[in-house]
Amino acid sequence: MADLPDKDAAFIDWYLAVVEAADLSDKRYPVKGMNIWTAYGLRARRRLDQVMIREIEAIGSEAVEFPTLIPETDFAKEKEHVKGFDAQVYWVTRGGLTPLDVPLVLRPTSETAMYPTFALWVRSHKDLPLAVYQIVNTFRYETKTTRPFVRVREIHFFEEHTCQVDDAAATRRVHENLRAFAKMAADFGLPYLALRRPDWDKFAGAAYSVALDAPIGGPRTLQLGTVHHYRENFSGPYGIRYEAVDGTQKLVHQTTFGLSERLLGGIVAIHGDAKGAVFPVAVAPFEVVVVPIPAAGAGPAVNAAASEITERLRAAGRRVRLDAGDERPGAKYYRWELKGVPLRLEVGRREAAERTATAVDRFGAKGTVRLDSLESDVATRLDEFDRTLRERAETRFRASFAPAATLAELAHSDRVRYVGWCGAEACGHEIERAIDGALLGTPEERFPFETGPPARCIACGVERDVRWAVAAQPI
Amino acid sequence: MADLPDKDAAFIDWYLAVVEAADLSDKRYPVKGMNIWTAYGLRARRRLDQVMIREIEAIGSEAVEFPTLIPETDFAKEKEHVKGFDAQVYWVTRGGLTPLDVPLVLRPTSETAMYPTFALWVRSHKDLPLAVYQIVNTFRYETKTTRPFVRVREIHFFEEHTCQVDDAAATRRVHENLRAFAKMAADFGLPYLALRRPDWDKFAGAAYSVALDAPIGGPRTLQLGTVHHYRENFSGPYGIRYEAVDGTQKLVHQTTFGLSERLLGGIVAIHGDAKGAVFPVAVAPFEVVVVPIPAAGAGPAVNAAASEITERLRAAGRRVRLDAGDERPGAKYYRWELKGVPLRLEVGRREAAERTATAVDRFGAKGTVRLDSLESDVATRLDEFDRTLRERAETRFRASFAPAATLAELAHSDRVRYVGWCGAEACGHEIERAIDGALLGTPEERFPFETGPPARCIACGVERDVRWAVAAQPI
Repeated sequence: MADLPDKDAAFIDWYLAVVEAADLSDKRYPVKGMNIWTAYGLRARRRLDQVMIREIEAIGSEAVEFPTLIPETDFAKEKEHVKGFDAQVYWVTRGGLTPLDVPLVLRPTSETAMYPTFALWVRSHKDLPLAVYQIVNTFRYETKTTRPFVRVREIHFFEEHTCQVDDAAATRRVHENLRAFAKMAADFGLPYLALRRPDWDKFAGAAYSVALDAPIGGPRTLQLGTVHHYRENFSGPYGIRYEAVDGTQKLVHQTTFGLSERLLGGIVAIHGDAKGAVFPVAVAPFEVVVVPIPAAGAGPAVNAAASEITERLRAAGRRVRLDAGDERPGAKYYRWELKGVPLRLEVGRREAAERTATAVDRFGAKGTVRLDSLESDVATRLDEFDRTLRERAETRFRASFAPAATLAELAHSDRVRYVGWCGAEACGHEIERAIDGALLGTPEERFPFETGPPARCIACGVERDVRWAVAAQPI
Repeated sequence: MADLPDKDAAFIDWYLAVVEAADLSDKRYPVKGMNIWTAYGLRARRRLDQVMIREIEAIGSEAVEFPTLIPETDFAKEKEHVKGFDAQVYWVTRGGLTPLDVPLVLRPTSETAMYPTFALWVRSHKDLPLAVYQIVNTFRYETKTTRPFVRVREIHFFEEHTCQVDDAAATRRVHENLRAFAKMAADFGLPYLALRRPDWDKFAGAAYSVALDAPIGGPRTLQLGTVHHYRENFSGPYGIRYEAVDGTQKLVHQTTFGLSERLLGGIVAIHGDAKGAVFPVAVAPFEVVVVPIPAAGAGPAVNAAASEITERLRAAGRRVRLDAGDERPGAKYYRWELKGVPLRLEVGRREAAERTATAVDRFGAKGTVRLDSLESDVATRLDEFDRTLRERAETRFRASFAPAATLAELAHSDRVRYVGWCGAEACGHEIERAIDGALLGTPEERFPFETGPPARCIACGVERDVRWAVAAQPI
């Protein structure tokens, strides 16, 4: 059991080692960038999905599922969109032994799969808003280096698509989505910024894009998701019209909200430490692991107590694992720490006699739970663990940002930077060159680090209409 | 709102009309045989999945997910298997703008995706049994006419794959799977027979296949699922070996258990009637629909009672829908009957005043529930509905079968037939020609219609070692 690489000094190596050692993903599948969801990784993914489903259904979306394959003819209807994806889609050209008349694209995202049908579903203002989501796999022929969860060729994907009566209603939906994401992120313990991407970096076909970015150490950020406002950019080409109250035919305004398995990558990257993964309670494949400590003469009592604890917690709805294997306790502790289980309950001779268990959370905080009040004691411990996890993440989040007043300060930065920006594309590209990364955009919501506006554009020095913008090296 | 076609006289037309009118699937997607899961259909599918997950995890399987695309090189390793699927797979030949070095197959089933990795996962007898399942979409380039849920080109699929120490352990797993299916089928209210397919009709690569067949009217049957015993047919080519207790290297014996969205087709086909779909409680997208009956002067009281009922049932964990739209009540009754909701609660002026609701189940059984005991009264009604549903299905199941003593009786049969069969392939094919269908095989479990063996083979007349076999027209 070798040590993990140092997280600060060799972040990517550390990340890959944690994903492998915690058995979250198996990347030995013979297609590059298409990985196997292991039983443990899939448990975490199902938890993530449940949180997403809860929050998106709370704002009125209904689950649907469109086919995986999109005819080339439909795929090609929105020009900007196709240009954005042309080089990174997989093509199905043969069915059985014969060439297909119309080649099929493996969906990279589902606008072009859904919108011809939206044109059938939407007839009248009474059909609006239409808000549907699906959780499906999407496919991108990535040419960059792939990494489990954060850049893969088959992606576990969440996408909401809505049709709205007008621009204002669509803008409201964008903000409902942002609030829904804030609730998900609270469960995941992930601090982030919602940033409106500069025009040259928006989603192919969008009027504008708001991305949800999290710092993951140094100048690096991870895009956790996006919310897009399409206006009429797709409803025009796909003919999604409705009869308004006044009898006129109007095009719908559309929005989308996209998330993916990247969230799991973000959770590993942001919460993990020198001992391995750390899962927030809401996502943890197991919330609690119970480890009996064998003791001469006390075996049966210890095992009985460990079983009682396991069964009672399970009955209380907890995800709990009893590790009764014959390894030494230290090896078990090491493994479950690596796998990020929030709370370990140890039961030895003394604990069994006293009807207690020693509780050690993933950060090492130690205490005792009493079997008399097991369920509530464990709930308290898990709440405390989650609070610690959020505080640690929040502290690191705040320490990840620093302002910069000159382009020179952006070079070799050890933080994500925020700078004054006049909004001009030329200045934006200067900033990007200086940080050797990207201008992620301007805050869509309250900017947590500064109350007033910046003094001047860091690139051209202009002082009027200057806003804060965030510059980083997105991975 | 036109009437549905007659179920007995025009079964397929009736089936297609119910699927469309109940809005379970939208087949207007522009790729033939790839249909859209509507919100309502997907709710039913999620329920089905939950039942499958519950029963398969109860027998120790863990969820995993393998990639959708399989390299041609891996796909081609087991010769019989490839021969079985060669003509019905989709091929990905291009990524972005360039041809792929190794073409990729869209999985028609996942043996060839999983087994190269199983060879890495299984090392020792301590790793066995390995039992994993996944719920994913699979793809088949069907050339026959496609039908929603029962024959589609993108299939919502459940597949368990296990590795066992030897033939006996694998045989035990086959029977554990059959028992697990029996529990699922009880929730679905689906009577069926488990039939061991004749050798010429087993799964490509299997040592033997047991299929789960349900009669769906006349001589027709629907295959709901399959359990296969592979012996060493795949572990040989894919090199899945383990070190046995005695230190020798052995090949694992493998089994698989496959189910799909066909179950939903079966539920529609078997339970549906002249009024539309009928869902068993376990699968129903909504268990209860609440319909307020507007009455002059009593509007607020009626609406308040309807809301109270809805909220209390929801709080009790019921899937309930309040239909407070401004259509007339009759139109609502018609729609929710079409959509197969088990129980309707009507609340009018009298009911609101008496704190009751009129309960009408999908079969028309009428009664009263009291708000004082709403939750338990509704539970009782739903149990009664489910009992009726099972009895009706069981009665029709028994009436669907008849023995036949001569090949002539098989022609133009109005039932599924069971006949004496000596086991010879030539006789089997004679039977198949006579019924213009297939010999589905011999009962793997107790045969419910006959206690003794048949007198002779219906084809050759031989009297020794003759077994009952089922002949039908599978759709």
